[in-house]
Amino acid sequence: MDFEKILQELPAQMRELCGKGRVATYIPALARVPANKFGMTLCRVDGGCYSVGDSEERFSIQSISKVFTLSLAMSRCGEALWRRVGREPSGNRFNSLVQLEYEKGIPRNPFINAGAIVVCDMLLSHLSNPKQNLRDYLRVLSGGFDIDFDEEVARSEAETGFINYALANFLKGHGNLHNDVDEVLDLYFHQCSLALSCSELAQAMTHLASAGVSKRLGEALLTPAEVKRINALMLTCGTYDAVGEFAYRVGLPAKSGVGGGIVAVLPGEYAVAVWSPELDPSGNSLAGGAALEYLTTVTQRSIF
Amino acid sequence: MDFEKILQELPAQMRELCGKGRVATYIPALARVPANKFGMTLCRVDGGCYSVGDSEERFSIQSISKVFTLSLAMSRCGEALWRRVGREPSGNRFNSLVQLEYEKGIPRNPFINAGAIVVCDMLLSHLSNPKQNLRDYLRVLSGGFDIDFDEEVARSEAETGFINYALANFLKGHGNLHNDVDEVLDLYFHQCSLALSCSELAQAMTHLASAGVSKRLGEALLTPAEVKRINALMLTCGTYDAVGEFAYRVGLPAKSGVGGGIVAVLPGEYAVAVWSPELDPSGNSLAGGAALEYLTTVTQRSIF
Amino acid sequence: MDFEKILQELPAQMRELCGKGRVATYIPALARVPANKFGMTLCRVDGGCYSVGDSEERFSIQSISKVFTLSLAMSRCGEALWRRVGREPSGNRFNSLVQLEYEKGIPRNPFINAGAIVVCDMLLSHLSNPKQNLRDYLRVLSGGFDIDFDEEVARSEAETGFINYALANFLKGHGNLHNDVDEVLDLYFHQCSLALSCSELAQAMTHLASAGVSKRLGEALLTPAEVKRINALMLTCGTYDAVGEFAYRVGLPAKSGVGGGIVAVLPGEYAVAVWSPELDPSGNSLAGGAALEYLTTVTQRSIF
Amino acid sequence: MDFEKILQELPAQMRELCGKGRVATYIPALARVPANKFGMTLCRVDGGCYSVGDSEERFSIQSISKVFTLSLAMSRCGEALWRRVGREPSGNRFNSLVQLEYEKGIPRNPFINAGAIVVCDMLLSHLSNPKQNLRDYLRVLSGGFDIDFDEEVARSEAETGFINYALANFLKGHGNLHNDVDEVLDLYFHQCSLALSCSELAQAMTHLASAGVSKRLGEALLTPAEVKRINALMLTCGTYDAVGEFAYRVGLPAKSGVGGGIVAVLPGEYAVAVWSPELDPSGNSLAGGAALEYLTTVTQRSIF
Repeated sequence: MDFEKILQELPAQMRELCGKGRVATYIPALARVPANKFGMTLCRVDGGCYSVGDSEERFSIQSISKVFTLSLAMSRCGEALWRRVGREPSGNRFNSLVQLEYEKGIPRNPFINAGAIVVCDMLLSHLSNPKQNLRDYLRVLSGGFDIDFDEEVARSEAETGFINYALANFLKGHGNLHNDVDEVLDLYFHQCSLALSCSELAQAMTHLASAGVSKRLGEALLTPAEVKRINALMLTCGTYDAVGEFAYRVGLPAKSGVGGGIVAVLPGEYAVAVWSPELDPSGNSLAGGAALEYLTTVTQRSIF
Repeated sequence: MDFEKILQELPAQMRELCGKGRVATYIPALARVPANKFGMTLCRVDGGCYSVGDSEERFSIQSISKVFTLSLAMSRCGEALWRRVGREPSGNRFNSLVQLEYEKGIPRNPFINAGAIVVCDMLLSHLSNPKQNLRDYLRVLSGGFDIDFDEEVARSEAETGFINYALANFLKGHGNLHNDVDEVLDLYFHQCSLALSCSELAQAMTHLASAGVSKRLGEALLTPAEVKRINALMLTCGTYDAVGEFAYRVGLPAKSGVGGGIVAVLPGEYAVAVWSPELDPSGNSLAGGAALEYLTTVTQRSIF
Repeated sequence: MDFEKILQELPAQMRELCGKGRVATYIPALARVPANKFGMTLCRVDGGCYSVGDSEERFSIQSISKVFTLSLAMSRCGEALWRRVGREPSGNRFNSLVQLEYEKGIPRNPFINAGAIVVCDMLLSHLSNPKQNLRDYLRVLSGGFDIDFDEEVARSEAETGFINYALANFLKGHGNLHNDVDEVLDLYFHQCSLALSCSELAQAMTHLASAGVSKRLGEALLTPAEVKRINALMLTCGTYDAVGEFAYRVGLPAKSGVGGGIVAVLPGEYAVAVWSPELDPSGNSLAGGAALEYLTTVTQRSIF
Repeated sequence: MDFEKILQELPAQMRELCGKGRVATYIPALARVPANKFGMTLCRVDGGCYSVGDSEERFSIQSISKVFTLSLAMSRCGEALWRRVGREPSGNRFNSLVQLEYEKGIPRNPFINAGAIVVCDMLLSHLSNPKQNLRDYLRVLSGGFDIDFDEEVARSEAETGFINYALANFLKGHGNLHNDVDEVLDLYFHQCSLALSCSELAQAMTHLASAGVSKRLGEALLTPAEVKRINALMLTCGTYDAVGEFAYRVGLPAKSGVGGGIVAVLPGEYAVAVWSPELDPSGNSLAGGAALEYLTTVTQRSIF
């Protein structure tokens, strides 16, 4: 597979989508990102990486962080995690209170906001220094030694995050939050504010394409069973309420963020990260999704 | 991979689950199937098949038929199909009217009852002799020349299928059914009554494991893109409201039926069919799911 | 209270609303009723009646019939009726399947379609000749000896009533319909097709304003307790999903129909019927509601 | 009507219900109220009052306070109030987030928690000293010069009120809260903590039985139109999700609280307050509802 050639073709193609989506504007730091950014990095499990466009520019990874907090929580809490959060697609908007109410405070899965807030709560209970531990985990995974939170973004999230406050209080009211609402949300808003580049994200995902082993670190970060499970969750719950559409078109386990990033893996072959800030109506990067669809179409390789 | 050995181990293991699920009892023909049946057949894409237990006994395939009606409809209607039915997991019970009402008569996906009824409606509009055409399609795919409807089952379904009548009338009231309610449901109840054995079902699924090509027939039945899409739909929508759980534990695109059957594929490697009548609370075969989980666990191979 | 003068003022006032609502068009017989019709009759409990406009013209009473089928059913089944239908406002569209599904086939109240269909089912079980018995009940109550079903309307309702077929099948599927779906709906569509004039309807309602006693017939048709209950149900459930609005503005127990009629009572004082075909967005007669609001405002008398 | 005699009969009758309901236990101050308390006061519009049992003992009026905050808000904001809160029964649990989400942050009515929180927000915007103004309003209405908040109750409500925090944040997130969440909820928790006796509450309600005029104060507090509207809202929304049942059995506009109090009026005749801490499953006082049903049954007088 000539990944280099495929990636080189993308920026021109993606330019046609420019202006057809909408950059997230609910906080100033996201609103001011230029709409025409496009970057992508693909790392093969055997070590070779291919990049194109703005692949070295850091952006707000937002919900992509939920893959990493889930990984951390799975390694700390094991199966006990699933007593407090489900693993079914939600069939509803990612911040829906409706389902949470019908299901008595047990979020559908760890990738909707309510579920990710519960995961934060577990990390708070299990880590000595949750924010730093999480940041350092990303540094190690990605090799980006100066990866950090964007404090402006974290502050903006906190100031405008009334729906997340509503979710967290609702979880607390149903007994599914053990720590203080404010502490949990502080961690949550910080995880969303983490800034990484495509090349850092692709690196940070490679172990999910290689049965849990990081070639770069020379060690197993997760068991094969854990990897299978995280990938299954990405496939069924990773792209908001477009998971069916995404599986149908792209066919890779993936997780997207409202900052315009998407990470995906083809197990046994590669991890990939793509970034383009304009979103489609379901909240996934418009050009990012199209680039991944192109990738799996021309290579004729997906998990299906 | 020594599939033969793996399959031989299963019946003994599955015996432990006997009595822990519940056989479907809503119609007499299903209720009287012995609970302790267990059969399984795995067919490799290169042609070798492995069977164990009651793999030659025919059973009511029920919702498994939805894979085949969808395949037929995709080949006849193409992308137009998706204007009348969605492709997202439902997050609700398979016969839920709630979602259908909120979404104005567009079923979430072709594997929930409402969606399968819309697919039937399309087949009625596109096929000259829908019931026979469907039956013959299964005969060709499986190689079972005498595969047929179980008229007793079809009649029982019609007599007790008030919720399906409700769904069809609701679809009709929203303009998403072009033929008569009774005609559409007659086809629907017949497709559910088709009786096949595990070995026939595994054969009928092999092209979904080999990019659309049937080795036995020596021809391409579907394009690679169509196969990718059907497999994606099975993964995200194929096992009622346990799709997340199933992806997490088993990690294969699969479709289950209330008769206790499950079909699944590992693209590029094998198609598999398993049958055991006792169901878990989500309506999937208890031992069938467990057998597939064992298979992907010991082989350390799934799509993830 | 000079009711004569108040009624005389209404047609001119109501003319201003002409063109601001929409006549029901789902069946031809309703669609062709002239939009500018307006009639009203008020009958005092002491016997005096006042009429204005098209008060002698018969129209399709539609859901207003549900008051009379409920009265009949209460007199035949007593409290047992409430095991199969609730008495709470629905908070949802009058033909909603959603609530019915969440509440396992027990309709919220006898004035939503599902509830009225269950009431029909009870009448079928308790009356020797349900259609004629119902028609004759209306003849006696109203004094209109030639009141009858409009067979064209009944037929149209049956031909287009897919949502009602869906509701009835859903009820049957949940065990809350004892007779055949088609028989129950035949009675239901016929009750909706009954054609009465405002003066006949006002007469037919007077006993609900006078503790159950019909002056004209010289007998008690209902007990005071039954009257209180029917009036309470009209107030809390009688005007689709605008019951709060209607209570707030008008302040009378009332039942409306999609044909543009509304009946209401001020207990101890009067019964009133008004008709004007244009409907507001909630499905209640626009001018009819305005006329009743005017009536209770200028007289400064409502139940509140 | 011999109200004195009727009231004297009640305590003995109500004793039979003792132990059949459940005292609210979500905060300590409510949990420790003796279950066997029963008090009632009825004040005729002409001035005579009748009391029985523990009618002079103050209790936490909880949601009954919503009648008084609504009255205050209506007099300050007029019809503008209804742009931010609806006036339809909810058909759902009183603290439901589901409906609020479907309806984009506009609460169904001012008596569900979300609606009362919006009313608090308006009072905060319109009153110079909201808490004291509200308390003093109650003092004037009831004649209880030392009526006050129960600070222990207010504090407990704040400490355990996660669902109310969820509601308020959700409203804020939808732009339907203009002041700080904490300030609004502080007022809300205080209004719920107001402690009054039955005789004080009956006094405070008399103007709602006499077209807005307080005989005791010798002045009109509300217009007849405002009274009609508040009474209509109590009837359609005042008793949680049992409004239909309550209208059916009792037939009076009423507002209940989780402290076991219920206030009601028969316009033109009397205001009544009853208190008994054990609640039925819908959250209304069990003996309180039964006492009011007895009252309207033996007097054969209700609004219907």
